[in-house]
Amino acid sequence: MDMTRIEKDSLGTRTLPADAYYGIHTQRASENFKISQQTLHPLLIKNMVKIKKAAAIVHQQNNELDDRKANAIIAACNDILAGKLANQFIIDAIQGGAGTSANMNVNEVIANRSLEILGEPLGNYTCINPNDHVNRSQSTNDVFPTAGKMAILELLLGLENALQLLSKTLKQKSLEFKDVLKVGRTQLQDALPTSLGRSFGAYQQVIEREYQRIIAIKSELTTVNLGGTAIGTSMNASQYYLTQVVPTLNQSFFTPLKQAEDLIDATQNLDSFMQVSSRLKGIATTISKLSNDLRLMSSGPQAGFTEIQLPAKQVGSSIMPGKINPVIPEVVSQVAFQVIGNDLTATFAVESGQLELNAFEPILFQNILSSIDLLTNAIQTLSINAIQDITANESYCLESVMHSDIMITALTPYLSYATAANLIKEARQKRCSVRDLAFKYKLLPVAQLEHLFSIDSLISNPDKMAI
Amino acid sequence: MDMTRIEKDSLGTRTLPADAYYGIHTQRASENFKISQQTLHPLLIKNMVKIKKAAAIVHQQNNELDDRKANAIIAACNDILAGKLANQFIIDAIQGGAGTSANMNVNEVIANRSLEILGEPLGNYTCINPNDHVNRSQSTNDVFPTAGKMAILELLLGLENALQLLSKTLKQKSLEFKDVLKVGRTQLQDALPTSLGRSFGAYQQVIEREYQRIIAIKSELTTVNLGGTAIGTSMNASQYYLTQVVPTLNQSFFTPLKQAEDLIDATQNLDSFMQVSSRLKGIATTISKLSNDLRLMSSGPQAGFTEIQLPAKQVGSSIMPGKINPVIPEVVSQVAFQVIGNDLTATFAVESGQLELNAFEPILFQNILSSIDLLTNAIQTLSINAIQDITANESYCLESVMHSDIMITALTPYLSYATAANLIKEARQKRCSVRDLAFKYKLLPVAQLEHLFSIDSLISNPDKMAI
Amino acid sequence: MDMTRIEKDSLGTRTLPADAYYGIHTQRASENFKISQQTLHPLLIKNMVKIKKAAAIVHQQNNELDDRKANAIIAACNDILAGKLANQFIIDAIQGGAGTSANMNVNEVIANRSLEILGEPLGNYTCINPNDHVNRSQSTNDVFPTAGKMAILELLLGLENALQLLSKTLKQKSLEFKDVLKVGRTQLQDALPTSLGRSFGAYQQVIEREYQRIIAIKSELTTVNLGGTAIGTSMNASQYYLTQVVPTLNQSFFTPLKQAEDLIDATQNLDSFMQVSSRLKGIATTISKLSNDLRLMSSGPQAGFTEIQLPAKQVGSSIMPGKINPVIPEVVSQVAFQVIGNDLTATFAVESGQLELNAFEPILFQNILSSIDLLTNAIQTLSINAIQDITANESYCLESVMHSDIMITALTPYLSYATAANLIKEARQKRCSVRDLAFKYKLLPVAQLEHLFSIDSLISNPDKMAI
Amino acid sequence: MDMTRIEKDSLGTRTLPADAYYGIHTQRASENFKISQQTLHPLLIKNMVKIKKAAAIVHQQNNELDDRKANAIIAACNDILAGKLANQFIIDAIQGGAGTSANMNVNEVIANRSLEILGEPLGNYTCINPNDHVNRSQSTNDVFPTAGKMAILELLLGLENALQLLSKTLKQKSLEFKDVLKVGRTQLQDALPTSLGRSFGAYQQVIEREYQRIIAIKSELTTVNLGGTAIGTSMNASQYYLTQVVPTLNQSFFTPLKQAEDLIDATQNLDSFMQVSSRLKGIATTISKLSNDLRLMSSGPQAGFTEIQLPAKQVGSSIMPGKINPVIPEVVSQVAFQVIGNDLTATFAVESGQLELNAFEPILFQNILSSIDLLTNAIQTLSINAIQDITANESYCLESVMHSDIMITALTPYLSYATAANLIKEARQKRCSVRDLAFKYKLLPVAQLEHLFSIDSLISNPDKMAI
Repeated sequence: MDMTRIEKDSLGTRTLPADAYYGIHTQRASENFKISQQTLHPLLIKNMVKIKKAAAIVHQQNNELDDRKANAIIAACNDILAGKLANQFIIDAIQGGAGTSANMNVNEVIANRSLEILGEPLGNYTCINPNDHVNRSQSTNDVFPTAGKMAILELLLGLENALQLLSKTLKQKSLEFKDVLKVGRTQLQDALPTSLGRSFGAYQQVIEREYQRIIAIKSELTTVNLGGTAIGTSMNASQYYLTQVVPTLNQSFFTPLKQAEDLIDATQNLDSFMQVSSRLKGIATTISKLSNDLRLMSSGPQAGFTEIQLPAKQVGSSIMPGKINPVIPEVVSQVAFQVIGNDLTATFAVESGQLELNAFEPILFQNILSSIDLLTNAIQTLSINAIQDITANESYCLESVMHSDIMITALTPYLSYATAANLIKEARQKRCSVRDLAFKYKLLPVAQLEHLFSIDSLISNPDKMAI
Repeated sequence: MDMTRIEKDSLGTRTLPADAYYGIHTQRASENFKISQQTLHPLLIKNMVKIKKAAAIVHQQNNELDDRKANAIIAACNDILAGKLANQFIIDAIQGGAGTSANMNVNEVIANRSLEILGEPLGNYTCINPNDHVNRSQSTNDVFPTAGKMAILELLLGLENALQLLSKTLKQKSLEFKDVLKVGRTQLQDALPTSLGRSFGAYQQVIEREYQRIIAIKSELTTVNLGGTAIGTSMNASQYYLTQVVPTLNQSFFTPLKQAEDLIDATQNLDSFMQVSSRLKGIATTISKLSNDLRLMSSGPQAGFTEIQLPAKQVGSSIMPGKINPVIPEVVSQVAFQVIGNDLTATFAVESGQLELNAFEPILFQNILSSIDLLTNAIQTLSINAIQDITANESYCLESVMHSDIMITALTPYLSYATAANLIKEARQKRCSVRDLAFKYKLLPVAQLEHLFSIDSLISNPDKMAI
Repeated sequence: MDMTRIEKDSLGTRTLPADAYYGIHTQRASENFKISQQTLHPLLIKNMVKIKKAAAIVHQQNNELDDRKANAIIAACNDILAGKLANQFIIDAIQGGAGTSANMNVNEVIANRSLEILGEPLGNYTCINPNDHVNRSQSTNDVFPTAGKMAILELLLGLENALQLLSKTLKQKSLEFKDVLKVGRTQLQDALPTSLGRSFGAYQQVIEREYQRIIAIKSELTTVNLGGTAIGTSMNASQYYLTQVVPTLNQSFFTPLKQAEDLIDATQNLDSFMQVSSRLKGIATTISKLSNDLRLMSSGPQAGFTEIQLPAKQVGSSIMPGKINPVIPEVVSQVAFQVIGNDLTATFAVESGQLELNAFEPILFQNILSSIDLLTNAIQTLSINAIQDITANESYCLESVMHSDIMITALTPYLSYATAANLIKEARQKRCSVRDLAFKYKLLPVAQLEHLFSIDSLISNPDKMAI
Repeated sequence: MDMTRIEKDSLGTRTLPADAYYGIHTQRASENFKISQQTLHPLLIKNMVKIKKAAAIVHQQNNELDDRKANAIIAACNDILAGKLANQFIIDAIQGGAGTSANMNVNEVIANRSLEILGEPLGNYTCINPNDHVNRSQSTNDVFPTAGKMAILELLLGLENALQLLSKTLKQKSLEFKDVLKVGRTQLQDALPTSLGRSFGAYQQVIEREYQRIIAIKSELTTVNLGGTAIGTSMNASQYYLTQVVPTLNQSFFTPLKQAEDLIDATQNLDSFMQVSSRLKGIATTISKLSNDLRLMSSGPQAGFTEIQLPAKQVGSSIMPGKINPVIPEVVSQVAFQVIGNDLTATFAVESGQLELNAFEPILFQNILSSIDLLTNAIQTLSINAIQDITANESYCLESVMHSDIMITALTPYLSYATAANLIKEARQKRCSVRDLAFKYKLLPVAQLEHLFSIDSLISNPDKMAI
């Protein structure tokens, strides 16, 4: 049996493995783009296949494809959607041609699988042709970005779950640590008292906002340019196809897509991708700040802030017995750095679009999808392997506040600035706390001192408490 | 008369010009921060003054300030809001201390102007004190970011106008150029026909979206942390003040602000500033792409694309008579580059926040405000000095399409791929157009050819046209 | 037979596959870091193994390891260096812990392979211990960055070759196109004449400089902190080890490394990595500009600049027969965007170092190594699949110059500005060239006109030519 | 007397103030570019004037300018170099046209000042013409980037001084703090002992390297494209001018410049500017890390690391008496963020060059020059206002080490891991130090314990010490 077959295009011929479902375009592209050794994100492939299937259904309805061809193409798509032939999508994630090679790889694999279903030999494109039949009424320039948006929408579901998990975990800790009084710090200098619970509450708030921003961005992604063909003029697409393809596609997608009103605009402008990337960058800055805070608060175990303990997830050092490092927050910050870098790559890609098309969609989609994956994984491990099992060094935290000069601020409305300053000076000399001196000197009636130094009045507006 | 006065703080003394309205804190800060030789954005100052005025009004109502003091402070604020003493705000825009020096500069100028109003000598802070009276119930940490949001909101009004002007201008051009058929290009290669009007229509669409994104972001900025004092616990602020200060401030601001529910969160997390910065970056990528397109389409005048002419705004070359350069699109791209760089600076600032405060607000606000100013100015000049007076080389554009191989695509649904390819080959050999050959060989009935080659059918979906 | 084994550390136990060469630390880390689904760059692993081997040799010499243990460890290292056990290095490339997990993965695999060599069961660490024996006198904090520098140095060899290939290819084209006169463009507007050969010569020059910059940066990378152990104080390393380990390592490395004089500095400061990353970014900007130029010059085939033709590497469009897109320059620009993004990630990593260590080395090394790989591959495909087979549209180029207004500049030293401007106006009206008018009106003696309009005098300083 | 004059160019006329030294081109450009309200860096202007002067000298020598004109132009240049007419350079720093407007502003001011010197009325350009005489043999495209390199070289002198000052200051502190034993930290967790002196020594080392990198980069900047005129073909420049202009320019510049061999390359490729910008970014990451460390080590004064005290430069809080914030390190980090952002802007500018020219030089030079200024100022204030007067909390640092579990590492070579771990556990239970327990249990002979716990052996390799 022959181990190879030969395919032909307008540029010449290529020898392929006889059992390859991809064809000559894919073969050429795999020679041209040996770049990253990473293939396209599976969700990009999957959603391109969904588009091909929807197109075949519409063409069948409109008699642009006969039943035999259409059914074979639909069946081939179903096979791939069921997970078959995954190893046939071999094109490098970083590729020239604005996604043409990705699209052709999909067209060729579907065509050959269709041929197989029909009992035809692979490569017999006169029967089912990757371009004329599978890609009919389509162009890379509408298929690829539509699949890009679909892939992002689908992948965001995981990120949403991760953000909700993180939010929920932070909420739990904020309740758990409600009464852990601690030193607040501005500019890393001891400032006013706060509670660990309120700190985690603040983290929960910002994560909740980041979650809401992801929810909100999705409306930017559901408008697609499918039907625009090469430049948005819908050249060579029938009116029936044009109106039916998106509704048909919606039957296999979890959230309704709609066709852009101005398909020329929707083909050349990638501004909504820029918005998604920016929001991912926003999340990155937020979780990196949160991770930094966790590292600061858990610094020690002796010569640090020593306010919290992260769960020990792995031994930290072979030299120092017992050293545990904040490995989870560290990996989260690194993911954040990668996502911020990816956003810059995306920025260059979007800015570099020219006239009717942006040729840099492959690197753009790759970076956005990669960032979503990274963030999802990082946020999950942060929630489960770090925050969920944080413990507070409650007594140490309380002691730090009680011995701190910052207690003086509770009294400053009642003392002169000079008295306060002197009290601090004396406390430092005597190595006692300003709080103790305040009681010792009865600077205010004891009951009032006790009220002013109580946790509630220290971390919440006093009048507010009274209500 | 004495030319200097001496002021004192807990660190020592400083000699100031006798007529300086600023005081010792400002003096020290101006020595510490000789960095950029730029002072704070005037809108930051202005809105801090509005906050000081609102605080004084509330304190007067609540008897935390007597009428004499409060009235003097309010009058001093009004003077500054009317434009007086602008030269007294001398602190470098890039400063350490999370804005403390900016806030103290404002406190000191207001205090001294109040003293002057009361007939007291400058520097007599026992009468009116920058901290105890002007800054009462406030902290830099709530005043400065609140003023930051107010300044951004106010400055965005100009950007919104500029975007609307650009959108309107693009709309006009899209109508004006509706019938200018031209070659569409993907990946800089001749692709399908389009019209110059549709190109400008697509630009208008994306600008409209950018405008809507700016409108939408404003709701993120109207939530302020005023009342939180140093770390969001509202330490040392009365309940009356806490509830009244934002409503009072709203009386002098153009759009309603509201106090954050979680003031600890609102003090430490600068995520909404990150969002604003990202949207500015989004606009930057969009207008840079638009400017690139204008440069491409106007390239020539002979060895280029030669589709449009930008208005001649200045002589381009001393060597080449008649050379006109696309100086306006060039300045717009440069502004875009600066805004993208500024967004990175903002990203570092936001990511670097620690615990209860982000100490890097000064550089953050400076970059956002600067980006808004730059974008506003760039978009205005782009609209007025470039796009408004663009003319189309209509006949050249039409000729390009008619002589282009891309005309073959109008026939591809009816011809075999091989026939089409041969036609192109023959046309090139004979130096004629495929369109001419199509008529010559009567590849289709003449009426059909005329229909297929008509502008309407070339740039819009044919069936659609029929409807 | 048992399919699993149990290992124990100070945190508890983990069940491992019985035949796993990695151990409990690796297992824990693989649970903690499910992040990118990419493992560490093979060169990082390989060079860590070289370090382990060098350490074992030194310890054997110094009697810190007995011969049986040392020989087994050395043999195990040799096995891995020969390509065995590659699938045992399972840790995610993005990991917390400053590389500890990567280092422990290597320690564990070497230990278990050593045990196997000695006929001991896997996991019997009392015989050969990953920490006490394999990692002896070492810390992640000196091993990992040393391996990082070694990996980069080794990987740069490929980039150097690629840059040399590109330089050579450009040089060939500059000679080949020496006499192809073409329109020079500034700001995309027709400017003075130049030749295609000089354009490619200019590209060759800048590539040569980028190559030299890579050569020069290597001296920054050959200084390593091996021997510093955890923070650079060489705690727990013998003096013999300290002086011998780097020379011993050099026996198996292609270029001599030297131990840093200040190991504390060398452990915490990653400035030389920043420099490497910056130079990669420099290359990225250079090749992206070059790729942009190729796209511009090959734009067309009719409605563009049409000066060169890139070799057809794959069919560009299913709709338009004969459309060939500049896919290679496009992939190069995308690689450039990724490298620029990676440099930003590296910048965040370097900037975020704290005190005695930078915990973000994993993401830093990953990005630098990835950028080198990407650039190497992109530059190779650019050389071989694009530039090598570029052809010039020589007659079109010449015609463009001859018909261009820019020919007037050859005469401007001899004409008044007004005469020149009028000539241009007349030429446009008559649709002829200024050159033809110059001859027609005999503006200068014919011989002088011929000299001034000659290729040599147009693209080189006239006086210079005369010499 | 007339308050205005009218000037004319090929596009029409403009009314100017009668006493304006600038002319119509400047006037038009100031209308086109109302962008940043910042004018060009004075060193850019100054060095363009030096170039104009050198050109006039050469033209006089070569009889391309008569003595009257040449002497007037030279005198006008001298006036400007002496500081006159500084207010006449009004063009926005961010401008389109690749610097044409900046160059024409200089040409016009020199022309009009020359006219004044000759007793001619301003604007009488038939006598001395901005283009024909002042700009003779020049183009913006060689003048502007040459002046850019000169300005950078000149401005770098200040940065070099600042880096040397910082290096010297760090060196002093490293000697001063030589014996201050402190806890080293990796990943913010207590690690091995080190000394504050060694920490400052490490900072000094990296600053020294950054200094050397600036010294080394200068050789990239001394190669200029002056003489290339518009695109590097030296069109319209005489051979005499071409060979003499750079040597003549060198007579008024502090370091020798040389003319590029390939002027086409040198005109279009801005790679050496990219290198400079990258090194500035490198410095930024280094000083931001250093500033972060200072903030960490000075955190407290009670609930922090509390190892050092920064000098009190200004009062930190109006609420908390005695709060002193690390304002100088904070401003340094902010400058670093700006410089990193500026490098990104520079990256976009360099990457966006097209064909024979990079039109984005104005934003590029502006960002590089601004970054140098910012870094110089920041490093100065860091040296003088922060590092120079840092004091160590010596006894607290020592106590931290002595009470820390990390002391166990001194004994680990002699104890089993289990013994060590138990010792730590016991010490924590008994709230004593492992060091005390080691003595109490006589785990090793007392003399050996004392040796192992001595400062020298803790922070340096023990064997090394013995030598």
